[in-house]
Amino acid sequence: LIDPTDRGFTLGDGLFETVLWADGRLHDLDAHLARMDAGCAVLGLPAPDRVAVAARLGAAVADAGLAHARAAARLTLTAGSGGRGLDRPEPLAPALVATAAPAPKPSGPMRVIVSRVRRNEGSPAAGLKTLSYLDNVLARREARAADADEALMLNTRGELACAAAANLFWIAGGRLFTPALGCGVLPGVVRARVMAAAEVTEVAAGPEILAEAEGIFLTNSLIGLRSVSAVGEKSVAQSRLADEISTLLGFP
Amino acid sequence: LIDPTDRGFTLGDGLFETVLWADGRLHDLDAHLARMDAGCAVLGLPAPDRVAVAARLGAAVADAGLAHARAAARLTLTAGSGGRGLDRPEPLAPALVATAAPAPKPSGPMRVIVSRVRRNEGSPAAGLKTLSYLDNVLARREARAADADEALMLNTRGELACAAAANLFWIAGGRLFTPALGCGVLPGVVRARVMAAAEVTEVAAGPEILAEAEGIFLTNSLIGLRSVSAVGEKSVAQSRLADEISTLLGFP
Repeated sequence: LIDPTDRGFTLGDGLFETVLWADGRLHDLDAHLARMDAGCAVLGLPAPDRVAVAARLGAAVADAGLAHARAAARLTLTAGSGGRGLDRPEPLAPALVATAAPAPKPSGPMRVIVSRVRRNEGSPAAGLKTLSYLDNVLARREARAADADEALMLNTRGELACAAAANLFWIAGGRLFTPALGCGVLPGVVRARVMAAAEVTEVAAGPEILAEAEGIFLTNSLIGLRSVSAVGEKSVAQSRLADEISTLLGFP
Repeated sequence: LIDPTDRGFTLGDGLFETVLWADGRLHDLDAHLARMDAGCAVLGLPAPDRVAVAARLGAAVADAGLAHARAAARLTLTAGSGGRGLDRPEPLAPALVATAAPAPKPSGPMRVIVSRVRRNEGSPAAGLKTLSYLDNVLARREARAADADEALMLNTRGELACAAAANLFWIAGGRLFTPALGCGVLPGVVRARVMAAAEVTEVAAGPEILAEAEGIFLTNSLIGLRSVSAVGEKSVAQSRLADEISTLLGFP
């Protein structure tokens, strides 16, 4: 249980990672923890001990009775309790919490909308998986209200950044594209795997570019790779390249 | 204690208010709860019951042994536990938490900097006191690292918005100015009281306008009204008008 004065709860002052547990192991844990370490450096938090983290996540999966299932193992690191208002206490006593829940089941192509909630590329937190995730919650709510599965978010300049809980790729002229990190993109673990496995061009582009796409897909650690069937009212072609990359990366 | 799956903790999915307890009562409680109600409407949360809230805050102050002191009584409303990832559960079971801590002691003029952290006026949450407050924490950290007390935040267009935990006013040509709400300003309770007590012009203006100011001050419910002595390296004149407004509003 969490102290009600924990700064993760009171101010969103912390970071999280959601790691896929499948086939009895944590997938891409090193990449997740490297991203958390980078976030810790920006927020001024000490990076958590990797061995302790792995043990805590495994225990959370086992305690939830999910050892033989596909699970979302979540690690939350906060600035802990104390301080006066926005000012952190000295010394800092960070809190580390591990929880687990069933992973979402693989399903078909996703319908997306372009959200009105803009991603703030002018915040140092734009590229971090922080506990201040309300903008993403609001974008997803907008998608659900429009009978869609997920929301694409533009940055304040009107450029594509990422989805509320996934990275974005599209195919044009047989080539793969994704928004550049400078657009306010969360540097996804699967995004990096796609870029290591295939040639991908990082660009700054407005949403109108998607109208020309020969295929669009989303990636994250829990869903793997999911193709997009429609952006708003407009249907999107299904691309064989997306299927090939999914197979290459071992997604179900 | 808070459930570790509470969406306030995991996603910053909620709102808060910090109410001044002094002279044995909660100050401006109706205005604070009206602001929380407006936030609930934007976030899709049910507004809390006002009578229950007043009782919970009073109990938190008493439990903390602060009934005879000046205290910060904090109310936190979250979207509760449950849901899958960003998607909220149905039905929603919001959580309401009240805590109390000693209020900051009144002190002298404040040194401020202009933060590099930009306020996202393109988010529906920009005008709300949400649990996703990390940008404000980062702006304050930047101020402390520069030996300043508080950080002024610009929006993504480069216009003055507010301080990390206060509203901003300045005096020029004997007149009072404050950033317009559309600049991504938190609509402060004391800000509204100043605007009811004096003639204030709301403007969109860059930080260079402060170089011409005959006085600058910050307001929030806990500090009341505090004058600014310097913006970065530049000293700011002390204004009699700021003192007059402070007296008019009954601040110590």
